[in-house]
Amino acid sequence: MNKFSYIGKSVKRKDALLKVEGLSKYADDYVFEDMLYAAAVRSPKPRIKILNISDAKAKKISGYVTLVTHKDIGGVKQWPIVINDYPFLCADETKFEGETIALVVAKTLRAARKAAKLVEIKYKELPFLTDPLKSLEKKSLKIYGSDNIFSKFIIKKGNAKDAMKKADIAVKDEFSTNYQVHGYLETQCAIAVPEPGGLMTVHSSTQCPFYVHDAVAAVLGIGYNKVKIVQAVTGGGFGGKEDVPALVASHAAVCAVKTNRPVKLVYDRKEDFMSMSKRHPSWSSVSYGAKKDGKITSCIIKYVLDGGAYSTLSPIVLWRGAVHAAGPYKIDNILIEAYAVATNKAPSGAFRGFGQPQISFAQESLIDDLSEKLSIDPIDLRLKNIIGPGAKTATGQKIEASCGLKEALLAVRKNSDWNKKIKAKKFSGEKARGIGISAVYYGVGLGAKGKFLDRAGAYVNIFRDASVGINVGNTEMGQGALTVLSQIAAETLNAPYENIRVQEVDTSKVSDSGPTVASRTTLMSGNAIIEAAKPLRNRIFTMAKSMLLKKGAESSAIMNAYQGVFSMGGKKVSFKEVIAECWARRLKMGEQGWHIAPNTTFNDKDGQGDIYSVYSYNANIAEIEIDKETGVIKPIKMSCAYDVGKIVNPVLAEGQAEGGILQGMSWALYENLVYKNGKMLNPNFTDYVLANTNDKPEYDIIFIEKLYERGPYKAKGMGEVPLIGMAGAIANAVKNACGIRVKKIPILPEDVWLGLKNKRKAK
Amino acid sequence: MNKFSYIGKSVKRKDALLKVEGLSKYADDYVFEDMLYAAAVRSPKPRIKILNISDAKAKKISGYVTLVTHKDIGGVKQWPIVINDYPFLCADETKFEGETIALVVAKTLRAARKAAKLVEIKYKELPFLTDPLKSLEKKSLKIYGSDNIFSKFIIKKGNAKDAMKKADIAVKDEFSTNYQVHGYLETQCAIAVPEPGGLMTVHSSTQCPFYVHDAVAAVLGIGYNKVKIVQAVTGGGFGGKEDVPALVASHAAVCAVKTNRPVKLVYDRKEDFMSMSKRHPSWSSVSYGAKKDGKITSCIIKYVLDGGAYSTLSPIVLWRGAVHAAGPYKIDNILIEAYAVATNKAPSGAFRGFGQPQISFAQESLIDDLSEKLSIDPIDLRLKNIIGPGAKTATGQKIEASCGLKEALLAVRKNSDWNKKIKAKKFSGEKARGIGISAVYYGVGLGAKGKFLDRAGAYVNIFRDASVGINVGNTEMGQGALTVLSQIAAETLNAPYENIRVQEVDTSKVSDSGPTVASRTTLMSGNAIIEAAKPLRNRIFTMAKSMLLKKGAESSAIMNAYQGVFSMGGKKVSFKEVIAECWARRLKMGEQGWHIAPNTTFNDKDGQGDIYSVYSYNANIAEIEIDKETGVIKPIKMSCAYDVGKIVNPVLAEGQAEGGILQGMSWALYENLVYKNGKMLNPNFTDYVLANTNDKPEYDIIFIEKLYERGPYKAKGMGEVPLIGMAGAIANAVKNACGIRVKKIPILPEDVWLGLKNKRKAK
Repeated sequence: MNKFSYIGKSVKRKDALLKVEGLSKYADDYVFEDMLYAAAVRSPKPRIKILNISDAKAKKISGYVTLVTHKDIGGVKQWPIVINDYPFLCADETKFEGETIALVVAKTLRAARKAAKLVEIKYKELPFLTDPLKSLEKKSLKIYGSDNIFSKFIIKKGNAKDAMKKADIAVKDEFSTNYQVHGYLETQCAIAVPEPGGLMTVHSSTQCPFYVHDAVAAVLGIGYNKVKIVQAVTGGGFGGKEDVPALVASHAAVCAVKTNRPVKLVYDRKEDFMSMSKRHPSWSSVSYGAKKDGKITSCIIKYVLDGGAYSTLSPIVLWRGAVHAAGPYKIDNILIEAYAVATNKAPSGAFRGFGQPQISFAQESLIDDLSEKLSIDPIDLRLKNIIGPGAKTATGQKIEASCGLKEALLAVRKNSDWNKKIKAKKFSGEKARGIGISAVYYGVGLGAKGKFLDRAGAYVNIFRDASVGINVGNTEMGQGALTVLSQIAAETLNAPYENIRVQEVDTSKVSDSGPTVASRTTLMSGNAIIEAAKPLRNRIFTMAKSMLLKKGAESSAIMNAYQGVFSMGGKKVSFKEVIAECWARRLKMGEQGWHIAPNTTFNDKDGQGDIYSVYSYNANIAEIEIDKETGVIKPIKMSCAYDVGKIVNPVLAEGQAEGGILQGMSWALYENLVYKNGKMLNPNFTDYVLANTNDKPEYDIIFIEKLYERGPYKAKGMGEVPLIGMAGAIANAVKNACGIRVKKIPILPEDVWLGLKNKRKAK
Repeated sequence: MNKFSYIGKSVKRKDALLKVEGLSKYADDYVFEDMLYAAAVRSPKPRIKILNISDAKAKKISGYVTLVTHKDIGGVKQWPIVINDYPFLCADETKFEGETIALVVAKTLRAARKAAKLVEIKYKELPFLTDPLKSLEKKSLKIYGSDNIFSKFIIKKGNAKDAMKKADIAVKDEFSTNYQVHGYLETQCAIAVPEPGGLMTVHSSTQCPFYVHDAVAAVLGIGYNKVKIVQAVTGGGFGGKEDVPALVASHAAVCAVKTNRPVKLVYDRKEDFMSMSKRHPSWSSVSYGAKKDGKITSCIIKYVLDGGAYSTLSPIVLWRGAVHAAGPYKIDNILIEAYAVATNKAPSGAFRGFGQPQISFAQESLIDDLSEKLSIDPIDLRLKNIIGPGAKTATGQKIEASCGLKEALLAVRKNSDWNKKIKAKKFSGEKARGIGISAVYYGVGLGAKGKFLDRAGAYVNIFRDASVGINVGNTEMGQGALTVLSQIAAETLNAPYENIRVQEVDTSKVSDSGPTVASRTTLMSGNAIIEAAKPLRNRIFTMAKSMLLKKGAESSAIMNAYQGVFSMGGKKVSFKEVIAECWARRLKMGEQGWHIAPNTTFNDKDGQGDIYSVYSYNANIAEIEIDKETGVIKPIKMSCAYDVGKIVNPVLAEGQAEGGILQGMSWALYENLVYKNGKMLNPNFTDYVLANTNDKPEYDIIFIEKLYERGPYKAKGMGEVPLIGMAGAIANAVKNACGIRVKKIPILPEDVWLGLKNKRKAK
C-alpha cells in the first residue's frame, strides 16, 4: 500500500496549544537564580572616534555591577561570520549610530538601562557615508577597504551587450527598494549561564543556534565542547534571528564570564530597530532585449545592495540575489554585476528571500514593460521564456524534472480570471482595479556559496514506552518545523504522530546542522531524520513481521504499516508492542542521521555553475484597488501557485504562503524606514508601519506538487518563496490599474497620487 | 606501532581541579527561580494503619504551600522497580519507621521541614517483624505475600548432601553480617523543574539516571520523551544512589506538578539514614566437605538476606550473592538456597558488592577453618581448588582465558611474606599480629538476571574545532568514569586527551544505558564509545592518510597515530587539521554507539548457566594487629592483587582499590547500625562510625592484567571487586592472630575481648 499515514495531511500543529495558551517560554521568560542584566552603551553618532569611556556617573546607580568593554574579551575580538570585519565590541571607532560600544551589567534591567545611559563617551565625530551609490564612487570617503565594496559577483553568459544591441526591442530602467524590518514578535535576547569548569550555556532567541555556538566559543576563546546553545521558543525569525543573535549572545557571554553570574541581555524595541539587521536597501539598473516574437535574448543588470557598516551576511545575500537576478527565464546572453557596499548605517543582513525580492521586483516590473512594448500578454511573454525541465538558467544549470513553473502560471491565470481582468476598464468612480503577475524561481538551500554549511544532523531516539524524541539542528520559529519534522519521523518509523516529540535544539545533541534559513529545514532536517530513522525502521519492521508471523499471519501475506499499526493477513501488532519487543532484545533504538546536500558548483570568474541542487517555483497574481483621490493601494486578492514539491502539511504550507504574501505586500506597500544623515528617524512600530491582519487580501493558494526525488517524501523548500514575487506582482498591478510604473519600494500612496497628478497634467 | 597514546597511563583526572577547588555543582547547589522546597512526613512507627492526615497546624507555618499525598499522583501508584510492591506514597499503611507518608511543600527549606513536623498523622500501630529468620518461620506474622519471601534462588549441581556425607572432612558454621550505610558525601537530593507542555526535567544526585527516568515518567503518567533527567555531580554512590534517587525524584516531581514550580527535595542526614537503602544484613549457614588431600567436594549453603519493608533490588542482590556463594572454587556438588525476606525496617538495597561481601565473608572464613582441619596452608588449599581457565563455576559456567586468580594468590603470598608470617608467634606484649587470606571472583556486569538492561549507548560528537563531546548513560560518581572514558575516546579517535569532554549525563541524549553499577561502566560505556568512534576513526584515519600523501609522504609508508598527531614517512598532520578537513568535506562527525553485553543464561530450576560474560578476580591478604587488653583490631597492611583485565588508568585503579579496601574494612570492623524494636538508634555519623583516612592501612596493590578480548582495550570491571573479600581476609587474620573465629560482621573490639576472655577461662 502506498497510502501515507501522515505525509500530506494537516495534522495538528505540535506547538499550537502552548502558544494559544501563552505558555511557550520565549528567551526573556527565562529567569535564573542570581541573574544579572546587561544593557548596551551605544554609539551616539554614525561614526566616531572613541576618546574615553567613563562609568563614573553610571556607578552611582544602585545595583550597578560592572562595565564590560572590548578589553574584557578573552577570545577573538572580531565576530567570525563571513568576512570578520565586525568587532564584538568597538575598540576605538564606531561605524553606525547604535553600534554597541560597551555593556553595563547591573542587578536589574532597569538599573542596567539607566546606568548605560549614564556611561559617558568622549568622542570625536568622523565623516560618514549613507548612500551606497556614493560609496561606490571612486573619489568617495573610504570606510571599508580600498573601495567600500564588501563583495562583488559577476554572472556572465554569452555576450549580453552585443545581444542587447541586436535586440528588436529593448527596455531599461532603474529601481530602488528600501529597508524591511523583520518585525519578529520578541526583540533580541540571550541569557548566558556560566557553569563550573569554564562551561557556558546560552539560552537564545535564534534561528541559528550553531552560529551562536561559533561566536560564543570564539569570543570566550574556549572549546566548542564547552559551549552549549539552547534555543528558546522563537516567535518568528525571517532572517532577523539568523546572524545577530550570535552577537547578542556573545555580549551576554562576556558579561557572564566577567561577573561569573547568569546574565540576560534583552533589547528594547528601539535599540532592536537601531542596531539589528534588516533587508538590504537596493538600487538596480535592469535591461532586457527581445525579439519581436517575444523571445528574450539579453539581460544586463547592475545590482547594488546597501550593506551598512559591516559586511555580516551581505556577501551571501548578494550572491543569492545575483544568481537569481535575471529571473526564471531562458536567456542566452546575460551580464549581471552585483555589489554589496559599505555605508555608515546599521548592517543589513538576512531577510526572507535573501537578496531575491529586491531584484525580483525590478526584473519582473521590467518584464511587464517589455510585454507592453511587445504587445504580448505578460503571462504569454513569461510562458514563452520561462525555464522548464531541461532548460538552462542564467548560471547554465540544467533544470531538473521537478519544475512546475508553467503549471503555476497557468493555474493562477485561470484562477484569477486574468484574461478578462487584464483588459478590463480600470476606473469606476474613485477606485481603479489592477491585476499584475510575477514569476519566481528559488534555489532551495544554501547552494554553492554555502555548501560547506549545507549539511544537517538528526538524533532519533525511541524510548522504551514507544515515545520518540527527535533532535535536529534546525529550529522552529513559527514556520511549523516541529510539526512537519514530526510527520516525517512518524511516517518513516510508522509511529503514531502523537508519540513524536521534537525536542528543543541544543547544540550538544546533534552536529552542526547549519542555519535555519534558505527554506532548508524540511529538506535538510527532514532528510537527516529519515537517515537516522532508516536503520530503526528496518529493525522495527523486521520485528513487527516476526511478531505477526508468531501470531499466525501467513508468511506470504504483505505487511501493512499505517498510523502506528502493523498488520498482515488479519493479524495486528501496535508500534508500542513492537518497540517493547525491540527493547527486550536490546536492539539499538537511537541513531544519528546525517544528510548533506548534493554537490553544487559556482565559478567565481563567470558566475556559471550548477549552483543549487533543486529549485522551487512560484507564480503570483496580485489584484489591487487604487483610490484615485488618496493614492491608497488596497490589495484585494492574491492568487499564488507554488511548486515546492510534495506538500507535507497543507494547512501549514498555506500558512507559510499567507504569511509570505502578507510580509511581501507589507514591504511593497507599507514599510518605510527613514534615515536622515545617518540617523534613524522612526525606530518603532508607531512610525514604522507593518501590514497587519486587517490588511490581508483574499488568498487563493494553489500547490503544484512536482515531486523532488531527493527530498524527504519528495518535498522541496517553501519558507521564502511566497514573499519574493509579491512586490513585482503588486507593482505590475499598480501599473495595470492606473498606468503608473512605480520604480521604488515601498509604493506609497503619495507616489501613486503624485503619478496620477502628473499624468493628469500631461493630458 | 602498538604503543598506546593514553590507555594504561595515569593521565590527569578530568574532574580533579573542580573538586579540589570546591566548584563542582552537586544537586543541592542547584537553585532555580521560584523554587519551592519539599520535606517528607514520615511514619513514626515501624508499621501503622493511617487513619487521618491533617495539615491544620502545618498550614500556620509562614511559607507553607501545600501537602502532597498519594492522591496527588497522576500516574501509577507503585514505584516500578523489580516487583513493584513499594508505593510512591503510602495510602493507608506504612511498613517501616521513616517511610514517606506525605510531603510538605513550602517556600523555604526551613519552613518545609518545620511544617512537615506539624503534620498530624492519626494512626493505629500494627504488629511488625524485625528478624528475617523469624519472618521465614511458617507461623510468623505475614507482612509480604503468603511467606514474607521477596525472592528465592536455588543453585544445584551434583548431589551436595550425598557428597557431604562422603567427605573425609566437613566443616559447617553459621555467620551473620549487619547493615552497611553508604556514607556518600551528600544526602539524597532531587530538583524537579516543570516545563510548559507537561515536560519535566529533574536534576538528580544519582548513579542511575535511567531508573529515575522510568520512575518519574511512571509517577507522572507521561511519556518518556517528556522527561529529562540530568545527573548532578554525585559524590559517591556505592549503590546508595542506585534505586533510591528514583523515589526521591518522583516525590519532587509530584510536588512540582502540583505547584507548577521547581521543587527541591533534599534529605537531612538523619532521614537519609532512616529511610534509605543499605547493605542487607545477612544470615548464612555454610558447610564444605573435602577429601584428605584438600580437594573440596561439596558445598551446602543457606543464605538469608534481610530485605526490609519492600523488595526494591533485593531479588537481584540476592541473585548475585547466591550465584557467587560457593566461592571461586571448582566444586562438583553444590546446593545453595538463598532467600530475601521481608521485615519492618528500611528496605535494604544495592551496595558495592551487591550481596557478595556477606556470603564471601562466611564462605572464606569457613575455607580457612577447613584448611585448619586439613592442616593445609590456607593459600595452598585455595590454589588446589580455585577455578582457572577451562574450569567450571558453581553454575556450570566454563571460565574464559582471562582469569588471573592463581597469579593473584601467588602475588599476594609473595608480597606479604605470607609463608613466614602465617607461622609466626603471635603475641608480643599486648599486641598480636595476624595474617589472613581471601579469594574472590566477581561476575562483571548485570549477568543473566539483568541482561535485558545490560546495554549501553554513547554519542561521540566531534566539533569543528576538533574538541570532542562524549555523552554516555553511565555516570561519574567519584570512580573516575569521566577520565577513563575520555582515555578510551581519545585513544580510539587519536584525539588529544585534553580535547575530550564527557558531558553531563542527560537521558535525552543517549538511549537507556542501564544503571551505573556492577562495575560495568568501563566495560559497557567504554565499548559503546568505541562503537560510536569506530566509523569516525575510519573517516579520520582515511582523511589523515590522504592529507599526508598530499604532503608528500610515500604511499608505501605506514601511518602512525599517536596522541593527536598522524605521521607518515616524516610528514605530520594534527588531529585538529584532519578534523577541519573532515568538516570541510561535510563528513559525518557525530555517531551513536550501542553495545550489548554478550548473551548469558540462567536456569531458574537448578541455577545453572553461563551467567556472566566475564569475571574479575582478586586475592587479599590482610595483616592486622590486636590489642589484647581492649580487643581493638588495627589493620596494618593489605596486600591485594586484582585481575580486572587491562588497567586503563593505574592511579585511578589504585584509587578504586584503596577505596574498596577501606570501605570493606570499615564494614568488617566499625560500622554498626543498631535497630531496637524496629527503631533505628544511631542514624548519624556520630554514633555510626565509618573508617576514615586515619584508619587506613598500608596498601600493597598489584594488578594482574589478564586481557579480556571483548573488553574496551581488553579491560574488565574494577569497581566492586576490592571490597568483597576484605571481611573474610580480616576475619581470617583475627583468627590467625588470636585463635578466635568471629562469625559476625562487624568484628567489634568487645567480640575479640570477650573471645580472649573466654579463651583464657577455658585454659
